[in-house]
Amino acid sequence: MFNTVGIVARLDMQEALNLSLEVTEYLKSRGLNVYLEAELAKRIEAETLSLELREMRTDFIVTIGGDGTILRTCLSLSKPEPPILAVNMGVRGFLAEVTPGNVKQALNKILNGKFIIEEHWKLATFLGKERLPDALNEVFISAGIPVKLFHANIWKNGVRIAECRADGLMVATQVGSTGYSLSAGGPVLDPELEAFVLTPVCPLTVFHPVVFSAKTNLTIEILKPEKALIVIDGHYRKIFDVETRLTIAKSENKTSFIRLKEDFYQRLESRLFFARGEQG
Amino acid sequence: MFNTVGIVARLDMQEALNLSLEVTEYLKSRGLNVYLEAELAKRIEAETLSLELREMRTDFIVTIGGDGTILRTCLSLSKPEPPILAVNMGVRGFLAEVTPGNVKQALNKILNGKFIIEEHWKLATFLGKERLPDALNEVFISAGIPVKLFHANIWKNGVRIAECRADGLMVATQVGSTGYSLSAGGPVLDPELEAFVLTPVCPLTVFHPVVFSAKTNLTIEILKPEKALIVIDGHYRKIFDVETRLTIAKSENKTSFIRLKEDFYQRLESRLFFARGEQG
Amino acid sequence: MFNTVGIVARLDMQEALNLSLEVTEYLKSRGLNVYLEAELAKRIEAETLSLELREMRTDFIVTIGGDGTILRTCLSLSKPEPPILAVNMGVRGFLAEVTPGNVKQALNKILNGKFIIEEHWKLATFLGKERLPDALNEVFISAGIPVKLFHANIWKNGVRIAECRADGLMVATQVGSTGYSLSAGGPVLDPELEAFVLTPVCPLTVFHPVVFSAKTNLTIEILKPEKALIVIDGHYRKIFDVETRLTIAKSENKTSFIRLKEDFYQRLESRLFFARGEQG
Amino acid sequence: MFNTVGIVARLDMQEALNLSLEVTEYLKSRGLNVYLEAELAKRIEAETLSLELREMRTDFIVTIGGDGTILRTCLSLSKPEPPILAVNMGVRGFLAEVTPGNVKQALNKILNGKFIIEEHWKLATFLGKERLPDALNEVFISAGIPVKLFHANIWKNGVRIAECRADGLMVATQVGSTGYSLSAGGPVLDPELEAFVLTPVCPLTVFHPVVFSAKTNLTIEILKPEKALIVIDGHYRKIFDVETRLTIAKSENKTSFIRLKEDFYQRLESRLFFARGEQG
Repeated sequence: MFNTVGIVARLDMQEALNLSLEVTEYLKSRGLNVYLEAELAKRIEAETLSLELREMRTDFIVTIGGDGTILRTCLSLSKPEPPILAVNMGVRGFLAEVTPGNVKQALNKILNGKFIIEEHWKLATFLGKERLPDALNEVFISAGIPVKLFHANIWKNGVRIAECRADGLMVATQVGSTGYSLSAGGPVLDPELEAFVLTPVCPLTVFHPVVFSAKTNLTIEILKPEKALIVIDGHYRKIFDVETRLTIAKSENKTSFIRLKEDFYQRLESRLFFARGEQG
Repeated sequence: MFNTVGIVARLDMQEALNLSLEVTEYLKSRGLNVYLEAELAKRIEAETLSLELREMRTDFIVTIGGDGTILRTCLSLSKPEPPILAVNMGVRGFLAEVTPGNVKQALNKILNGKFIIEEHWKLATFLGKERLPDALNEVFISAGIPVKLFHANIWKNGVRIAECRADGLMVATQVGSTGYSLSAGGPVLDPELEAFVLTPVCPLTVFHPVVFSAKTNLTIEILKPEKALIVIDGHYRKIFDVETRLTIAKSENKTSFIRLKEDFYQRLESRLFFARGEQG
Repeated sequence: MFNTVGIVARLDMQEALNLSLEVTEYLKSRGLNVYLEAELAKRIEAETLSLELREMRTDFIVTIGGDGTILRTCLSLSKPEPPILAVNMGVRGFLAEVTPGNVKQALNKILNGKFIIEEHWKLATFLGKERLPDALNEVFISAGIPVKLFHANIWKNGVRIAECRADGLMVATQVGSTGYSLSAGGPVLDPELEAFVLTPVCPLTVFHPVVFSAKTNLTIEILKPEKALIVIDGHYRKIFDVETRLTIAKSENKTSFIRLKEDFYQRLESRLFFARGEQG
Repeated sequence: MFNTVGIVARLDMQEALNLSLEVTEYLKSRGLNVYLEAELAKRIEAETLSLELREMRTDFIVTIGGDGTILRTCLSLSKPEPPILAVNMGVRGFLAEVTPGNVKQALNKILNGKFIIEEHWKLATFLGKERLPDALNEVFISAGIPVKLFHANIWKNGVRIAECRADGLMVATQVGSTGYSLSAGGPVLDPELEAFVLTPVCPLTVFHPVVFSAKTNLTIEILKPEKALIVIDGHYRKIFDVETRLTIAKSENKTSFIRLKEDFYQRLESRLFFARGEQG
C-alpha cells in the first residue's frame, strides 16, 4: 500500500531529530523508500535521500514535532497533499495523535492497513488576484504593526454585512476552531459541520464571532491603516497595501491525517488542559 | 392569496391592544376574514371572531408586540404553522421587522403579493419518550432551583463527548443564536448555516460553545441535582426527574416569517445596540 | 490556646461523617472540649455535646466537606465568627486547604500554635431596612423565576451609574471572585485588594464587570419583574417585592480561616483545573 | 490663575488644525501666552511661539484630537505634567470631555476658575534598570513579531504567582481599564479604586484577568521567544531581549485633566457605544 514516505521534523528540538532517525531506520527496515525533508537531512546526516517539501509527493508523510511542524508542512506541500501521520513530541499538539512511545506500534498498524483517513478541507485566500497558500487552521489579518487599530468592512457573497474595529480578525476552519480562534473567544466547530468562523481579536466595539457555511465567500475590505499583515497558519506572513481586497473561501484542496481512531473530543480535552500549571 | 388572518398581541401593553384594533379594521376593509386570539378578543371587545392559538389555522398571522409575543405564538400553534408577520412595538424585537408606523403600508404590500417568506427550522425535544413543544430560539436546561450547580454528560449521536458543570446549558437554533445564547457567550450563526449551538451558562470549569451540524442528535444526561428545569423559548417550563434523558434534534416543523426584505445583519445590529443607555 | 472546638460536616457524604468521628476522637484525646453541630450529632451518634450553629461560640471550628459546608456555616454563626479550619473532602473546595489524609498532622501543628489566621471581610446586604446574612462569597440577584429578564438600575454612593438588563447580577467579595463570579466572566481579585466586583450573568446588552473599592455603597433598584430573588453564598434564598431597594456594602464582620500557609494562587490553580474531564 | 498655555493637536486631521488656530486666537484675546507644539506650529503657520512637548511647562495644555493625541502628549511631557484640557474631535475619545462646539464656552468657564482637576496616577515600567516612559493607560508586552506565542512567568512582590501562554499580556491603570484592556476582556475599574489589572490577550490556556492593589510590584519574566515587544500607551514601542525582566509598579507621577464635571460612567457609556454601526 505505502511504498514511499517523507519525514519532516521540528529542527530546534534534539528529541525530534533523534526520533526522525529512529523512524527512518524502522521504515527502511520495513522496505519503504524514505525521503528526509532537505533541512532535516542536513541535521541528522543519515544516508537517506532528501527532498524539498514542495517536491515531497510520497505516499504519506510522517511529521515529528507539534502542530507548528504540521502547519509548516501543509503550507509547502504541492497539491494534492500526501496524507500525514503526526507524531507529537510533547508540545502544543492538538492535531497529532501518536506519541513518541507508541510510534513503532502505530507505524506497524498503519503499514498493515489498520488506519482511517481523516480529511480536512482548507481555506483559499486571494489577495486581489494573487492566490496565497491555503490555510488548514486560520487566516489572520491585522494592522501591519502590533497594537494598532485595524478597521475593516466584511462582505458576504458580495453584500456588506458588518464593520469591525479590532486588533485583528481571523477566519478559522473547523480544525482551526480549536486553535488560535478558541483563544480569541471563538466557538468549537464539530468535525461534521461544514463551516468556518470569523473571530475578532480584541474588538474595540461589540463584535461577536460569526459562523458561516463553508459555501460562503467572505471579503475583507480594509479601511485602515495603510499597511496590513496577513498570517496563514502561523507561518506564512505577508505585508500588503490595504487597497487590495482579501477574499476567503473554501479551497478545493484538503489536508488528510492518518489516524488510528477518531477522537476529536478527546483531543479537545487535552487542548483545553494541556498546561495545568497556568495561572497558579 | 390571503383570505384569513389571525391577530395576536402583547396583552399587557395598551399600544399593542390599540394597534390590534386598527390592524383588524384595516384587514376587514381589505376583505379578509379576521380572527382574534381568544384572550385578545376579550380585551379589545371588537365584534370579531376569536380562536385559541392552537386552532388558528389562518392563511397568516399578525403578531403585535415583541419577540416574546412571537415565541409564545409559535409554541402554541398547530403544525404546520401559518406564516407570521411580526410587528415590533418598540420592545426587544430581533425577530420583528415591521414598526407600528409602517404597518398599513407593509400590509398593503403583502396583500399585493410583494413579500418574501423566511423559513426557520426548529428544534424538537424529547423528554424520554414525551415530545415537548418545538423551539424556535432555544432549549434551556438547568437545576430545578436557581444558583444550583447542574452537572450533565453530553452525548452526540450516541457517543459521550463532554461533561459539563454549569448553572445551565442551552441548545440554540440559528435564529436563537442572536438571543439568549448570545448573552451567554455563544457565537452568531449565519442564516445560511444549517447548525445549532450548545452554549453553557456560567460554566464552573472551561466549557466553550460548540456548533453542531443540524443533522446531529444531542442527548443530555443529567447527573445532578435530582430535579431539573427545562425552558423552551422562554415560555414553556417544566420540572422533570433527572433520570429521564433529554434528546434534542432538528424538528420536521418550521416557523416562517413574512418579510419585506432580507436583513439579518441589519437586525443583528439593532439587537446588539437596542438599548444604548446600558452601563452608563 | 484553643480549649473548645465545634465540628461541622457535610451530612450527605459518609466519608465526611466518618472523618468527623475521627477528628472528634483525636481532639478529645488532645484535651479539647468538642461540640458537634446539632444535625451532625444525630447522624454520627457520638457521646459528644452538640450545639446549633448559631450557638457555636467555640475557640475554633472544623468544617469537613467542601466550600458549601463552609459557606453554610458562616451564614449561620453568631458574630464575631470563630476561626475556621476547613477540611476538603475532595469536592469543589477552593476555600479549604487541609485534605483528609493530613488532617491529624494539621490539627497537631495548629494545637502547637503553628498557623496563620487569614481574615476575609464580608458583604452586608440591606433589603430596605432589613439586614440579611453577610456574604463571604457573593450576593446574587435575579428575577424570581429562572430565564426571565431582570432589569435594574445601579447606584453608587447615591448616584445612578448604570442600567442593566440581564439574567442576574452579583456582587462578589475578593474571596468570592474565584467562585461564581469567575464563572460569570468576572476577574480574579488579588487577596491584598480591598474591593468587590459587580458581575452580570448573561447580560442582554453590553455590561462589563466593574470593580469597586470596598468603601463603596452599591444600591440595586430593580425595575422588572415584580418579584426578585436574592441568593447569598448559594444557601440563603429570599423572594422579595422589587419596590424594596437592596443596598450592599462592606460588613463590619469577618470570616477567618486557620491556615498552615498562604497559598491563594496555588488554590486558584486547583479551582481552575479541579475537573480535568470537562468538554472532552 | 492660568497665564501660559500649550496647544497640541492631531496633525493628520484638518479640522483639528483649524480648531487649534481658533483656540490660539481666543486664548491670546483672553491675555494668555500661547505656545504651539513644534510640529503643529509648522503646519498652521501662526505667528505664535512654539515648544517641543518635553519643554512645555505651561500652566496647562489644550489637546485637540482624540485619546491618541492625549496619550502621545503625556508620554513626552516633562514631570510634573501640566494639567490637560482635552478637546475631542469626534474620534475615539474616552478621555476627552469638551467637544469642538463648546470649546470657547469651556475655556471661558475654566479661565473663570470654574473647573475641577481629575488626577490619574500612572504606571512606572523598568526594563532591567532602565526606566521607560510612564503609562497613563497600559503597558502591553508580546512576542517581538505578531501571532507568535508569548510565554511568561508573573511575579507579585517577589513571589511567582502564575504562568501565562498568550499572544500578549497587558497591565492597565484605572483609566486604561476602559481602553485596550476592556477589548481584551478585562473589567472596568471604578475611579475610586486604587488598582491595576493584568489582562491576557488570546490566552492559549485559561488565564483570567487579575486585579491588583496599586501598591503591588509586578514582574514579568519572559521565557519565550527571544525577542519581546513592549508598547506603552499605544505609542512608545521597544523591542528587547527577553533576558531582561520587566517590573511594573505605581509611578510617583500623575496625569491630571481639567474637567467641567465628573462623569466617568457617562463617558464609559459613550466608550461602549461610540460606533453603533459595528457588526451589521
